[in-house]
Amino acid sequence: MNSLKNSLVRIALDAMGGDFAPRNEVQGAVMALKEFPGKLHVILVGDKNKISGELKNVGYNGSDIEIKHASEVVTMHDSPSKAIKEKKDSSLVVAANLVKNGEADSLVSAGNTGAVGVASIFIIGRIKGVSRPTIAAPIPNEKSGFTYISDAGAFVDSKPQHLVEFATLTSTYLKEVYGVENPSVGLLNVGEEESKGLKFTKETTELIKKTDLNFYGNIEGRDIFKGTVDVALCDGFVGNLLLKQAESMLPFLKTKFKQFAETSLWAKIQIGLAKSAVKKALYDADVDNIGGTPLLGINGITIIGHGSSPAKGIKNMILQAAKAYNADLVNKLKEAIEHEHERTQSS
Amino acid sequence: MNSLKNSLVRIALDAMGGDFAPRNEVQGAVMALKEFPGKLHVILVGDKNKISGELKNVGYNGSDIEIKHASEVVTMHDSPSKAIKEKKDSSLVVAANLVKNGEADSLVSAGNTGAVGVASIFIIGRIKGVSRPTIAAPIPNEKSGFTYISDAGAFVDSKPQHLVEFATLTSTYLKEVYGVENPSVGLLNVGEEESKGLKFTKETTELIKKTDLNFYGNIEGRDIFKGTVDVALCDGFVGNLLLKQAESMLPFLKTKFKQFAETSLWAKIQIGLAKSAVKKALYDADVDNIGGTPLLGINGITIIGHGSSPAKGIKNMILQAAKAYNADLVNKLKEAIEHEHERTQSS
Repeated sequence: MNSLKNSLVRIALDAMGGDFAPRNEVQGAVMALKEFPGKLHVILVGDKNKISGELKNVGYNGSDIEIKHASEVVTMHDSPSKAIKEKKDSSLVVAANLVKNGEADSLVSAGNTGAVGVASIFIIGRIKGVSRPTIAAPIPNEKSGFTYISDAGAFVDSKPQHLVEFATLTSTYLKEVYGVENPSVGLLNVGEEESKGLKFTKETTELIKKTDLNFYGNIEGRDIFKGTVDVALCDGFVGNLLLKQAESMLPFLKTKFKQFAETSLWAKIQIGLAKSAVKKALYDADVDNIGGTPLLGINGITIIGHGSSPAKGIKNMILQAAKAYNADLVNKLKEAIEHEHERTQSS
Repeated sequence: MNSLKNSLVRIALDAMGGDFAPRNEVQGAVMALKEFPGKLHVILVGDKNKISGELKNVGYNGSDIEIKHASEVVTMHDSPSKAIKEKKDSSLVVAANLVKNGEADSLVSAGNTGAVGVASIFIIGRIKGVSRPTIAAPIPNEKSGFTYISDAGAFVDSKPQHLVEFATLTSTYLKEVYGVENPSVGLLNVGEEESKGLKFTKETTELIKKTDLNFYGNIEGRDIFKGTVDVALCDGFVGNLLLKQAESMLPFLKTKFKQFAETSLWAKIQIGLAKSAVKKALYDADVDNIGGTPLLGINGITIIGHGSSPAKGIKNMILQAAKAYNADLVNKLKEAIEHEHERTQSS
């Protein structure tokens, strides 16, 4: 993420979504604008007074930030579809409508993941030919890159045809936005052999072989951190569990270090010395350095982040959205889905 | 694992199973005997010449080790059921028969996991009332204990009734062998709310509520490392993926450290200092310090280990088996399954 093209990208930021909203949202937006001056326009959607207050706190008075008032907030405990239906003046719904109406190019939210998904699907809409959008979540791997779990939980109980769509969308995303050449796709399974697994995995394998995706075959749980493939394909039930387990690795390490540091003074000194090395070595394993995860298959760009995202996380989400827009992602996805449907239906 | 009762435990050790067999198996057996002299009798099953050679190498000449010759070996690439049917004189099949015939109390193998499962189920047999045995795999957690993923891959595509059996078997194992009082059971799902997930998870929840298991409700992927519950319940397809991902955390860290150490001399020094602290802090996250995983529901004690197990890992597998035998595990499991069936059928 070290360059952005010259075109201005308009970001509709759900400023009330995260756990520390609107503070982190405002600070993140200002950080993004400082990093790429003149290339971003951020519309902060939410409580006008609170947002203005935060903007004053950080001393921002430029013209690249605009406030769009919204009186309601979708909380983490709201039922997604109910919230979208009933809270018409929520920051999330208003932000999604900005994208729908062409007033913004991208929706960025650290709010209720399910609600961001529902808002994206039902307000912004799906790309023609996509029956189920997918969350493509980057997990750091040993090859100093990322393995994308797709679907990381947009839907559960998907069918083989959906997984082929997930693979097409995610491969195209990696190719167009991150320049990954011919991204490889592995199917998460309990063994490498094709005979292993479920009826579901066998059917998916058969179907995916008809596409011209770069299909590697089965991969196992260890291949995510190992980086065997670019895309680790699975149903959202499985993907969500794996994503959350992978994300809990750093908190687990921190707790273990803390516990060990408490055992003796020497242990405390050792852990003190170790900490900064570990932090640097695991820099890209920190989700906040990545930002969020795209919801692919939407007729617009949606980036979903953790509720707990710090300002840096929000900044990176905005930059992710901008990069996707600069790559003309939505049109590339449309072409890829059309092409895949032609392939699988003609063969 | 710091005490063993006085009764002698007879271990049938598949001495040809692991990747470094029979060397690590022989060394592991000798280590276990040294730790608990007079309490263990290990039958090393496999190639007599090779095993004798290794015994000579370590200078063991006591009477607590016996060699039982077997001329064949089940390899990691063998199809499990085919191997058990055709390789009648393999170390695994011969070892399983020792348990079946009452000449040994426990089967320990670091060989082909699938084949150890098939040998256990079809040679030693299942406990009456158990339709599917389960692999209960310990994952270290923040509470300085372990979260047991059950089923970690004995079967795929299990039904809700099977999961209730897995929960019963694993809870009983933790209570009887490790003294965990009233073990808590969580159902792995994509959210905490009961409405979340699959038809399968909803049906499992309904069924498990009829038992008197200590059911916590839904847990998420992050709860495994967090240690929210003692037993993380799931189908073996999901459990196998989560187990292998959890196990790949340490190799991932090692690679990341190595990569960072190569960036500068100062980084190298930092990582050097950090390494021993990390190793100590993560001592119990090392699978070899645990040993293996029990296959529960078998009419005997089966401990399955990693092919790559070092001698220490083999030693810990033997001690796990002995501890389970000392706790009269099989009879306790029989009682628990009977009790659970009465509960779920009468209500």
